[in-house]
Amino acid sequence: MSRDMSLDSTIKRAAVILAAGQGTRMKSPLPKVLHKVGGRTMLDRAIDAAFDLGCDRVVVVVGNHSPSVGIAARARVGDQNVVVQDPPLGTGHAVLAARDALADFDGQVIVTYADCPLMSAEVLLPVFDMAQTTEMVVLGFEAADPGAYGRLVISQNHNLYAIVEAKEANKEQLAITACNSGVLACDRALLFSLLAEVANDNAKGEYYLTDVVALARKRDLMPQVTFASEQDVGGVNAQGELAMMEAVWQTRTRQAFLRDGVTMTAPDTVWFSWDTRIAAGVTIEPNVVFGDGVTVETGAVIRAFSHLEGAVVGEGAFVGPYARLRPGAVLGKDVHIGNFVEVKNVTVGEGAKANHLAYLGDGAVGARANIGAGTIFCNYDGFFKHKTIIGDGAFIGSNSSLVAPVTIGAGALIGSGSVITEDVSADALAFARSRQAEKLGWAANFRAVKSAEKASKK
Amino acid sequence: MSRDMSLDSTIKRAAVILAAGQGTRMKSPLPKVLHKVGGRTMLDRAIDAAFDLGCDRVVVVVGNHSPSVGIAARARVGDQNVVVQDPPLGTGHAVLAARDALADFDGQVIVTYADCPLMSAEVLLPVFDMAQTTEMVVLGFEAADPGAYGRLVISQNHNLYAIVEAKEANKEQLAITACNSGVLACDRALLFSLLAEVANDNAKGEYYLTDVVALARKRDLMPQVTFASEQDVGGVNAQGELAMMEAVWQTRTRQAFLRDGVTMTAPDTVWFSWDTRIAAGVTIEPNVVFGDGVTVETGAVIRAFSHLEGAVVGEGAFVGPYARLRPGAVLGKDVHIGNFVEVKNVTVGEGAKANHLAYLGDGAVGARANIGAGTIFCNYDGFFKHKTIIGDGAFIGSNSSLVAPVTIGAGALIGSGSVITEDVSADALAFARSRQAEKLGWAANFRAVKSAEKASKK
Amino acid sequence: MSRDMSLDSTIKRAAVILAAGQGTRMKSPLPKVLHKVGGRTMLDRAIDAAFDLGCDRVVVVVGNHSPSVGIAARARVGDQNVVVQDPPLGTGHAVLAARDALADFDGQVIVTYADCPLMSAEVLLPVFDMAQTTEMVVLGFEAADPGAYGRLVISQNHNLYAIVEAKEANKEQLAITACNSGVLACDRALLFSLLAEVANDNAKGEYYLTDVVALARKRDLMPQVTFASEQDVGGVNAQGELAMMEAVWQTRTRQAFLRDGVTMTAPDTVWFSWDTRIAAGVTIEPNVVFGDGVTVETGAVIRAFSHLEGAVVGEGAFVGPYARLRPGAVLGKDVHIGNFVEVKNVTVGEGAKANHLAYLGDGAVGARANIGAGTIFCNYDGFFKHKTIIGDGAFIGSNSSLVAPVTIGAGALIGSGSVITEDVSADALAFARSRQAEKLGWAANFRAVKSAEKASKK
Repeated sequence: MSRDMSLDSTIKRAAVILAAGQGTRMKSPLPKVLHKVGGRTMLDRAIDAAFDLGCDRVVVVVGNHSPSVGIAARARVGDQNVVVQDPPLGTGHAVLAARDALADFDGQVIVTYADCPLMSAEVLLPVFDMAQTTEMVVLGFEAADPGAYGRLVISQNHNLYAIVEAKEANKEQLAITACNSGVLACDRALLFSLLAEVANDNAKGEYYLTDVVALARKRDLMPQVTFASEQDVGGVNAQGELAMMEAVWQTRTRQAFLRDGVTMTAPDTVWFSWDTRIAAGVTIEPNVVFGDGVTVETGAVIRAFSHLEGAVVGEGAFVGPYARLRPGAVLGKDVHIGNFVEVKNVTVGEGAKANHLAYLGDGAVGARANIGAGTIFCNYDGFFKHKTIIGDGAFIGSNSSLVAPVTIGAGALIGSGSVITEDVSADALAFARSRQAEKLGWAANFRAVKSAEKASKK
Repeated sequence: MSRDMSLDSTIKRAAVILAAGQGTRMKSPLPKVLHKVGGRTMLDRAIDAAFDLGCDRVVVVVGNHSPSVGIAARARVGDQNVVVQDPPLGTGHAVLAARDALADFDGQVIVTYADCPLMSAEVLLPVFDMAQTTEMVVLGFEAADPGAYGRLVISQNHNLYAIVEAKEANKEQLAITACNSGVLACDRALLFSLLAEVANDNAKGEYYLTDVVALARKRDLMPQVTFASEQDVGGVNAQGELAMMEAVWQTRTRQAFLRDGVTMTAPDTVWFSWDTRIAAGVTIEPNVVFGDGVTVETGAVIRAFSHLEGAVVGEGAFVGPYARLRPGAVLGKDVHIGNFVEVKNVTVGEGAKANHLAYLGDGAVGARANIGAGTIFCNYDGFFKHKTIIGDGAFIGSNSSLVAPVTIGAGALIGSGSVITEDVSADALAFARSRQAEKLGWAANFRAVKSAEKASKK
Repeated sequence: MSRDMSLDSTIKRAAVILAAGQGTRMKSPLPKVLHKVGGRTMLDRAIDAAFDLGCDRVVVVVGNHSPSVGIAARARVGDQNVVVQDPPLGTGHAVLAARDALADFDGQVIVTYADCPLMSAEVLLPVFDMAQTTEMVVLGFEAADPGAYGRLVISQNHNLYAIVEAKEANKEQLAITACNSGVLACDRALLFSLLAEVANDNAKGEYYLTDVVALARKRDLMPQVTFASEQDVGGVNAQGELAMMEAVWQTRTRQAFLRDGVTMTAPDTVWFSWDTRIAAGVTIEPNVVFGDGVTVETGAVIRAFSHLEGAVVGEGAFVGPYARLRPGAVLGKDVHIGNFVEVKNVTVGEGAKANHLAYLGDGAVGARANIGAGTIFCNYDGFFKHKTIIGDGAFIGSNSSLVAPVTIGAGALIGSGSVITEDVSADALAFARSRQAEKLGWAANFRAVKSAEKASKK
């Protein structure tokens, strides 16, 4: 995050994040704010933004309909900072639910929304910045199609005279394209003092946060407006909007990686997560998915159809096509992980290779070791996971089963198709193999019998 | 399909589907109308639309150049309802080919096209609706670029005075953007009576269906027009147009699933088939292909790079990444099918898992069974397919080969790397494994020899 | 390439390709001109274009910062035709670096750029064509946003009066949208005679190639302009521009294959290489990547998620989903290569099948042979690669390991799970398998013990 403005650190700040909406239009058993954008829940994104802004306190207002939202919020901000709004009687009512939690807080409060996934600290920073010199700040945006949004009646010097709801606006006001994002900041005491005066004498019988602007004006205060892009303040109410926000976030992230020197054949087909780290000089082929927690170092090549989560790809490593790296896969320099290979919780030493159809689960592979096609780390006994340790320069013949816990010494060689259940000494050959036998003519006879059988069944 | 209008059920209806075009611009050995959109041939889509409209009779007019079209059509509508137009002398001539087949039919006839894949019953319904109160109805569309389309000369009350071919139109007529889709409905007797009068005194020497409008006007009848979108009536003549129709269909289908509560990270990279059924509350990651006949129940997650055909995915099941479900894969509740796993014609019981690199072909897996990495159901002997039956809670060690027909009892355990050819008792351990042997220093010696050999070859 | 114009073959032609730029904005350790579009480096594309134009001599001007560019260039045009510009003092200075290399060359020279990947022979041909009748030709383009491009002051008959740099242009000149691509052609002697007069009395202290136009005008010569599209002459300076050029190239290539009769469900998700050859009547499902050197014959189907490089897919063959064909995979007629199967350097005979989870590396598979699921060709001993030869109609049981070098006779049958190390006779059955053993109740006991252990650890 690049900040062109810096906030006065002597002012204390808090955020009230509204996360109580039901999200029924999502038509999903998962609560709306737990849906993800860039691999991170919208709730977490809102909390991240608040902390990134430097908030000392972050209060999340949840509904009583989705316990999982409260659980997720409490894990981030603590029990005392999660408050329940019940029943839901509007945004003003929701913010009021945070009053007790912030009773002892002396500073500025920003109200934000857990269903606005692109409302980052960068987007919100100007609100707190302006709040340093004025009593109340509202975040506006220029709407391409203002529709039902509240219109901001403003002067050229950013004074906000009123917020007019679309249904109460006259023709001239409807023509205004400056609209209200719902984000607002002001001093805590003032905020709750004004909220106490908000009434619900409207069509829906709800208490609207927006009304504090008119109430502030009645006290001869002059709220001000700062602006963000419509995209940055957009909310998610349906799956289509969620997908659109994801698309915007991915596009921005792809552009950022391209600017930073990542080569991508088809950037539109590469999906990143919120915490993906890719160094300059990395090449990514089409159709790659990065889950959470991936780091790729310079010179590495991620080939088509690869899927990475919780993995580190070392300098100059080759991954894929069709490589699946799972959490704990830590690939050293120049490692090769090839097609249809899964690596989970395994450290792979410099220059080691597993090029084809293998499962490396739990353990460690030494430098320059070669894991043959079809090799399986048999890591699970139905109850516990065990480790397979392979020494430097070992050569694991194709189609071997390494039954963990097991250690293969450095430079050891495992014969193809062996089931290895005991440790193997360094530089030894180990094998577990039956003698090959042959029955001459048997196949020809078998074919004759089966062909006749098949013919008779027709 | 949501119908805002309902048809008078006392009127009988028939469709004549023109499917005789050669489609040479497709440059494909496959006849044009057998190309698919959303996994269904354009011919089948046209026949579906006719039946969905409630047609009692559906006649398909085919050419004599592509026997496979006739075969496909006869399978749907019966021999007596497939007629051959030979040689091809225009659309009017094509419809005339259906005259005998409909000789005994007393009702209304709609003429449609087997190369218009989005011309669904919903699109066509207004034609039959209007035909209930007027002698002849033509389906028009507003063309973005009218070009060579026939122009509809109409009054405000939908009266159709004439259809003017582009090459015969004056400047004023060329400016008309209302164009003819080619779809037309009228009483059977009237249709064929008018067609009998159509002449071929034109540049191409063809009999045009369009001419029935002018002939109807001569009889003082007043045809009427109803409109569809240009996209809905568009025809396919080249591969690029086919791909475009597919894109339109996929986009609409994705939007519909999003509206219905399906979560998709990147909907543009998910491909559906005409009969895909996805419940609300399902999550689909990027790059998933649904072939025909897939049902996914609520709470299931389809991870990236998965490919499903003819499969049922139960509630809460996890599929992929890189899972291949083939016809007859029926996954119970909470089943996990992981990366590089293929399932075909296997019922998988609740909570069972096959997480890595396995082939499950023909059989049944019991509830909570665990199929280890690299397991293969050896289902084929070169002549017949046989079944592998695995009991509840069985544990199949990694890299096992289960040679069907074979039954693994409930709770049995198979040692890693075993080739199982005989049935295994419940709760037993079965294995087929060679003793592990070790030759100390052998690998070091081997390396020395091979290194020297390699050096000498350079 | 379709050429509407043909050049006078009695004129000799040369190209000077400028490839000396540092490309720092790429932020990549790989030199800019070695980045690829459509699988071919931009440098190779520029050299291809020069040779395709019929140039007798192709001189590449490289910098001294990236030895790999010089190495790549020398491999294409020979040592004597690669010249080093050091230090970099502008485009005019760069072309001058080619003076000695072309001292003995008597003919026309075109100056092109190694960072303009769509500047093909077709795009450049009109320049040489016009140069047959005029002393100097500049390639221009109509810029959507002329910005900092040099403006072309031209008359209606293509006379070029001047090139005005944007920063020196007056308001009227800034309004000109005809811009300079940088490509220029003229007689060798004239070119170097003019370049000798170019000065560096400008802000950057560089020698600009552009200045030869003004110098030619001073000699009363009248340069002329021919035009290309902005896209075709666009240069790459950053990763985002590279990705955009790739997208343009892919879109054009997809359209060309569609026009030629290739069926693609989702053409936007199919990636081609510069030398991909696909016959009419081939079907390609979504998400397929073609690396270099692939040929697909008619009637073949490439299913979703397949990745092909250096492979031949025979008539009617089925590949994928999830098939990986690597260099030297040569599939005969009607071959089936299925999911999670890798084929490298193997010739596969007509009608042979390897449908599931297999690695076929180095060797040959006979006609109608069946390679079971999980089969591995153990081709590598850590030092050398060896071949596996499978005869016609052989049946390789699932999960077999074929330890190369090894030959399986025609019609032979390999038992599932066998490790085959010795040749197998035709029509024989071969197997290498341990006896199956069973311990009744062992699994139940194991579960009891492990469950208790797990409970005690909690």
